[in-house]
Amino acid sequence: MPNLKIQKIDANIERSLAFVNAKTLDKFKIQHSANVKIKSENSEVMSEVISTETLVEPGFIGLSEELITKLLSKENKKVNVFARKRPHSLEYVKNKQTGKIWTESQIRSIVSDICVGQYTDLELSMFTLAQYYKGLDMNEIQFLTQSMAEFGTTIDFDEPVYDKHSIGGIPGNKVSLIIVPTIAAAGLLIPKTSSRAITSPSGTADTMEVLCDVNFSSDEILEIAPKVRGMLVWGGTLDLSPLDEIVIHKIEQPLGIDPHSQMLASIFSKKVSTGVDHLVLDIPTGTGSKMPTREEAIQYAQESTELGRRLGIHIEAALSYGEQPLGKAVGPALEAREALNVLLGKGPTSVLEKSNELSGILFEMAGLATAGQGASLAADFIKKGKAKAKMEEILGVQGGNPNIKPEEVEVGEYTVDVLAPKDGYIVRLSNVAVKKVAYAAGTPSHKKAGAYLHKKGGDFCKKDDKLMTIYSDSEGRLTEALNLATNLSPYVLEGMILKRISSGPKV
Amino acid sequence: MPNLKIQKIDANIERSLAFVNAKTLDKFKIQHSANVKIKSENSEVMSEVISTETLVEPGFIGLSEELITKLLSKENKKVNVFARKRPHSLEYVKNKQTGKIWTESQIRSIVSDICVGQYTDLELSMFTLAQYYKGLDMNEIQFLTQSMAEFGTTIDFDEPVYDKHSIGGIPGNKVSLIIVPTIAAAGLLIPKTSSRAITSPSGTADTMEVLCDVNFSSDEILEIAPKVRGMLVWGGTLDLSPLDEIVIHKIEQPLGIDPHSQMLASIFSKKVSTGVDHLVLDIPTGTGSKMPTREEAIQYAQESTELGRRLGIHIEAALSYGEQPLGKAVGPALEAREALNVLLGKGPTSVLEKSNELSGILFEMAGLATAGQGASLAADFIKKGKAKAKMEEILGVQGGNPNIKPEEVEVGEYTVDVLAPKDGYIVRLSNVAVKKVAYAAGTPSHKKAGAYLHKKGGDFCKKDDKLMTIYSDSEGRLTEALNLATNLSPYVLEGMILKRISSGPKV
Repeated sequence: MPNLKIQKIDANIERSLAFVNAKTLDKFKIQHSANVKIKSENSEVMSEVISTETLVEPGFIGLSEELITKLLSKENKKVNVFARKRPHSLEYVKNKQTGKIWTESQIRSIVSDICVGQYTDLELSMFTLAQYYKGLDMNEIQFLTQSMAEFGTTIDFDEPVYDKHSIGGIPGNKVSLIIVPTIAAAGLLIPKTSSRAITSPSGTADTMEVLCDVNFSSDEILEIAPKVRGMLVWGGTLDLSPLDEIVIHKIEQPLGIDPHSQMLASIFSKKVSTGVDHLVLDIPTGTGSKMPTREEAIQYAQESTELGRRLGIHIEAALSYGEQPLGKAVGPALEAREALNVLLGKGPTSVLEKSNELSGILFEMAGLATAGQGASLAADFIKKGKAKAKMEEILGVQGGNPNIKPEEVEVGEYTVDVLAPKDGYIVRLSNVAVKKVAYAAGTPSHKKAGAYLHKKGGDFCKKDDKLMTIYSDSEGRLTEALNLATNLSPYVLEGMILKRISSGPKV
Repeated sequence: MPNLKIQKIDANIERSLAFVNAKTLDKFKIQHSANVKIKSENSEVMSEVISTETLVEPGFIGLSEELITKLLSKENKKVNVFARKRPHSLEYVKNKQTGKIWTESQIRSIVSDICVGQYTDLELSMFTLAQYYKGLDMNEIQFLTQSMAEFGTTIDFDEPVYDKHSIGGIPGNKVSLIIVPTIAAAGLLIPKTSSRAITSPSGTADTMEVLCDVNFSSDEILEIAPKVRGMLVWGGTLDLSPLDEIVIHKIEQPLGIDPHSQMLASIFSKKVSTGVDHLVLDIPTGTGSKMPTREEAIQYAQESTELGRRLGIHIEAALSYGEQPLGKAVGPALEAREALNVLLGKGPTSVLEKSNELSGILFEMAGLATAGQGASLAADFIKKGKAKAKMEEILGVQGGNPNIKPEEVEVGEYTVDVLAPKDGYIVRLSNVAVKKVAYAAGTPSHKKAGAYLHKKGGDFCKKDDKLMTIYSDSEGRLTEALNLATNLSPYVLEGMILKRISSGPKV
């Protein structure tokens, strides 16, 4: 159990690494690349040991600034180093091999061990891949969801909380910026936390951030939301579901997977943490969306509503058309602009109608409208400017300009038009290709980047009509995006030849 | 695609890490902790990028000596850095989720990508855990075995090769040191490669290394073995199955798993690489062994023989008694001593008989004995000293002292006896407890450490009879081992109380 002095190693290391002199390792019989527990006076972290001969003197331990902060310690302070034991809960994870069902207490101890940093990345992958390869049953998903919420921050309101959630996946889905002010305008409480872009060129938090601040503490939300009735904030800093952050960041994103059970627990743990009572769940469906077939979407809806029932959340799931981008604007700034236009009654019908349908379901759940009448009530809130007025109030309390005009939202200065190669009907506008073009232009990190879709699936276009305008704040990225748009053909025109493949000329 | 100069970072980093100045990362838009491909003139490696502000100047890339060596480059030479693409074969791995069966070409591309270092540790875990959670069918195991061998070193003899393999797991199983000289004495070719200890206090290579060198190149083996007819070498440096080394080291050991399909492919890929034609497979069976039940052992034997049939290897599997340690000696030096004694006709009957049974099966496979007569032929080779003479020859060519006497083998200078607590029959001698005691005493890395079992299961002992002597080369470790021996009760005597648990006195 060596007692070592902290030395700062200037390296931004995501994985915890502790640099220790080879002589020290030898003296204390610690194996190079062993996993150890490092304990300061106030905290502890897990780390992998790296042996060095010159970076760190004997008796010292080289840690990154991040690790020193986590230890609540500083340079030259002492820490103790202990051999790490494999967490006991890993045995439960392993038992998934034989199809064992995890009990509530087993799940709680797995979640607890992960949240306090007891799992190595490999062990985390064993947990996540157990879900990926073996799946969880509904009881397990329920317990996982509850445990994940239990180890996160809880935001408790004294009144019913309304919420809208989309499983995401299609570009241009800015409806939250219309639904939240509509619902809040009716006096219902809808303090919506959202994510940044995961599988689209702009997450709700990215889009909202173009117009105002989205970083609020749970205390601020508790104070502001009940007064204004609605907020649109980023959930990322709220620590609503710490396990989810760890698993997404360390396993799901690097491997490109999103196990079904973890996806459900991820969404609903945050709903539990934020005290949601009534939720409308948007499930975009169709080719190029997360739910390619109707059957998958229905199964997902059934599981979600069943999980909601178990968690005491009233959920109405709505399958929406997800085969092409929603509306015309894709990318944070362009979408913010379009949302403001819709609130002014000027935006694309597809966005307006989808927003009203989803708002309407919430109105019906709240008893503010009878069955089938919710959407027209929502339309009324838009038409009479009540939703716009509420949005101004929300922008005000979130530190934005309440009176910003859509055309004042700044978009990328470099633009290029993609023109129709011939006359014809547009038989397809591909979600995937539009996303790739928008990513190449710089979304979601460059907020002014994106694409404006002049034409949508089903439209007729004449040769050289503008199909799409690409926006970027860099000429290089604009060129890249245009090249992609040329190669990927996001627009498919009736009778168009998609690609030619040649055997080479006859010799 | 930045072009950076190599700077040596003095850190022994098992995971590939490349330290790059934050400014350089920014300039080339490389994400911190991104995976990149580093290309020198002569080679390439995959690595994770670590951002630093002072360790490495802009324009440089900090690499460990190991990575620089892998790149066949040196300090101040230039390398190119490319964004890493997720290997395409990972898609096949992912498809295991839906139960897809891997094709031969898919398996070959997975194995190839892993062997050239295209997989990150997480991706490797996804491959290994696909096997762990989903399992492979016999076709997949066959293709995996063949691909693993294909990407390793091949040792080709011009004549039939005989071999003995044990699945391991029980302590004291030193029979290879008796079987190899017996078989070789009969003129059959048995160039045995073995592993170091994985699941016992001494692997065959550890035991043999007490008596002579076990590190030989494939060229040396090809030259020496045909003349002497037998060798006992360590397989670890021969690169017979590179994927196996990677998976064991990076995934199986850290997670403590050994998926069935990977275990079979691991063993048999090396048999294919070393050109084995006839194999006797020892499967120790019973409580405390790797195959606790007869049914599991039989299933394993059937799978192995079926896999052998597909690979063109004639396999005879033998279920052996595995409920207690084999013989009396446990630990490299003690086992080497016991093996020499057996070759002199003086060792424990259990070791002698098991060796003769397994040698006998090989003799019958070779047609040197009729069915049921092999063991007595083997016994004859021992009795007449032919096996001992062959062992001397083997020790000679492997750089050992051919004439070493058993008592000249040095064992630990610190010893302590474990005495019988009372009179009685020994109803159990636990493999697991004996292993733990031997590990505590220092095996397998301290070769003189171990345990000598004066009594075995079924023996009668009187109070204060010696049950076991523990050997160590350190007083501290000896004490630890004795404490364990006291707590774990490796010996269970009839009527003995194993543990008392009290509610505390009545108050």
